[in-house]
Amino acid sequence: MEVPQVLHMNGGVGEASYATNSLVQERVISLTKAIREEAAISLFCNSYPRSLAIADLGCSSGPNTLLVVSEFIKVIEKLCGELNYESPEYKVFLNDLPGNDFNTIFRSVDRFKESLRSETKTKTGPCYISGVPGSFYGRIFPNQSLHFVHSSYSLQWLSKVPENVNNNKGNIYMARTSPSNVLTAYYNQFQRDFSLFLKCRAEELIEGGRMMLTVLGRESDIMYSKECCYIWELMAMALNDMVLEGIIKEEQVDTFNIPQYTPSPSEVKLEVLKEGSFAIDQLGVSEVNWNALENWNAFECESQMYESHSDGPYNVTQCMRAVSEPLLISHFGESIIEELFNRYQKILIDRMSKEKTKFVNVTILLTRKS
Amino acid sequence: MEVPQVLHMNGGVGEASYATNSLVQERVISLTKAIREEAAISLFCNSYPRSLAIADLGCSSGPNTLLVVSEFIKVIEKLCGELNYESPEYKVFLNDLPGNDFNTIFRSVDRFKESLRSETKTKTGPCYISGVPGSFYGRIFPNQSLHFVHSSYSLQWLSKVPENVNNNKGNIYMARTSPSNVLTAYYNQFQRDFSLFLKCRAEELIEGGRMMLTVLGRESDIMYSKECCYIWELMAMALNDMVLEGIIKEEQVDTFNIPQYTPSPSEVKLEVLKEGSFAIDQLGVSEVNWNALENWNAFECESQMYESHSDGPYNVTQCMRAVSEPLLISHFGESIIEELFNRYQKILIDRMSKEKTKFVNVTILLTRKS
Repeated sequence: MEVPQVLHMNGGVGEASYATNSLVQERVISLTKAIREEAAISLFCNSYPRSLAIADLGCSSGPNTLLVVSEFIKVIEKLCGELNYESPEYKVFLNDLPGNDFNTIFRSVDRFKESLRSETKTKTGPCYISGVPGSFYGRIFPNQSLHFVHSSYSLQWLSKVPENVNNNKGNIYMARTSPSNVLTAYYNQFQRDFSLFLKCRAEELIEGGRMMLTVLGRESDIMYSKECCYIWELMAMALNDMVLEGIIKEEQVDTFNIPQYTPSPSEVKLEVLKEGSFAIDQLGVSEVNWNALENWNAFECESQMYESHSDGPYNVTQCMRAVSEPLLISHFGESIIEELFNRYQKILIDRMSKEKTKFVNVTILLTRKS
Repeated sequence: MEVPQVLHMNGGVGEASYATNSLVQERVISLTKAIREEAAISLFCNSYPRSLAIADLGCSSGPNTLLVVSEFIKVIEKLCGELNYESPEYKVFLNDLPGNDFNTIFRSVDRFKESLRSETKTKTGPCYISGVPGSFYGRIFPNQSLHFVHSSYSLQWLSKVPENVNNNKGNIYMARTSPSNVLTAYYNQFQRDFSLFLKCRAEELIEGGRMMLTVLGRESDIMYSKECCYIWELMAMALNDMVLEGIIKEEQVDTFNIPQYTPSPSEVKLEVLKEGSFAIDQLGVSEVNWNALENWNAFECESQMYESHSDGPYNVTQCMRAVSEPLLISHFGESIIEELFNRYQKILIDRMSKEKTKFVNVTILLTRKS
């Protein structure tokens, strides 16, 4: 399985799409809003550039795709209004793997620009939006062409399944029962990928440019900590049940491993320090409930998704399906998908009624050193 | 009908797709290759830029999409090899309306880069490809950000159906029987659109930047000349037959007009001179047969499409369907499409057996004045 060819969120805007099932990811973006705002303001006030180049890496397709960009532009426009400055032009780059549904994004761009114009009081600067297909574990932009890089809930995806994890029997991710070589292989792959990511972005950002990354992670130093592995453990449980009933071959589950790593803050920090191009401005951890609804109260949530998402375990199932279905199909084929997610949902109903289940997010704000 | 929302070539790679039915357009691109090569060389040798920004406007989706870019890069790489110069970096912008199938393009980008690397002897400079959705009858790129703009077989599409053409009864385009106000309305819309296009590109190109445009046009000074109008006249014939048989309402045909204008070289020249930002380097006319196969001999044609395109009138029908189906569906609905193109094909079989049928292309090469 070549991850860059296979990995993408479910496209379109239908029931199983990422666009319809990304309320958790929206909450994570809203949790880190204040940090971004401060970064945007200090970036702008540093040199008052006439042109601001912003990239969102792993932008996916849905209501979250242009959320950060929209917020960024509004902050700068407000500032320009207060300071009586002319608005800069905005160059917006939306990046994701080539399998991402860029068509759906592009068809919403005109509407986005219109709502931006109506929401800002200033004569908003021109905004040039483009889509950039490609893996962020490689160069995707010209040298020193970006002012601000943002990525949320994408960098936990590795460039490939780690090598030598064939003995991760019964598991599909790092787990308590994973042999130590599996854990090491996962960690090594994270180190290689994340340091390459930092090196590439260091070349693409201008000096003084800012980068803010939020990655699905963990607080604990233990790699197979429940906070990061449980969600996949429950999916493995559904798969293993299907093995017992002869629906899937055991070997198929044994050879399936999720290309993901959920780092701790100190692991993230270590790679940044080793790579050396960035100063760390902030590093923090936040939490969101698996059940997106528990993260908001009805008054607070502006999302249209809110009302249609009243069933917690169903939401979690749909969310996990939206992010993992293409990976699962490429390995197991399409025929098992309905059955798998039916079983997964039943397991989630049981567990979520008994336990508090949360995702942990590691957020880091960086400045490209001179 | 809002043209920018509706107009796009048929997406995907299936039987009715533009990707499968764009052999005529490929031939047109190959006919103008020498002019582009010369322009690329002189552009590069003018200032030996370290970074070259190239835009293809109306790029569509299919084998032609990256053809011009690929050829451009190969010319520069060959030159760099001969001169022992380091290759520049390439910034490639693929533009089309938001309804275009960018997903299919993006999924071919890795393969494209790989074949580029294997075909050039030099260590090819880095190539950053992005998709830019939006109408080229408006700004789509930052000020002075482009070195070379290319567009082939796109600029004949107008930004909208001209106003006040309601009395164009029985026709769907300019025709011999069109009232003079219809012809004037079409021409005025072309003038407005093309001059706006030139103004926008003048702002986006650097001084000395080059622009090469090929547009479906005509040689004659007469607007309703057969060379440019006949292909739509035959489609109108099929539609009118369906009116007679009660399949379509007469009123529906009367209110349908193709948002296209096929200018003469002198009309193109006039707008360039009036706008004033560009010097005209070359202006010429070429021809291609409706039947794509007659434009090549089997040895000359490298396209994989060649072998599967042995039936002339079928090809023309499919080609016209690939470019006009979304427009037709938005006006007439989907139900009439199969029937319409069956009838159209029969008419084409008859006419193409009796007449020599050709498209006329107007090509202009421009330099952005200082």
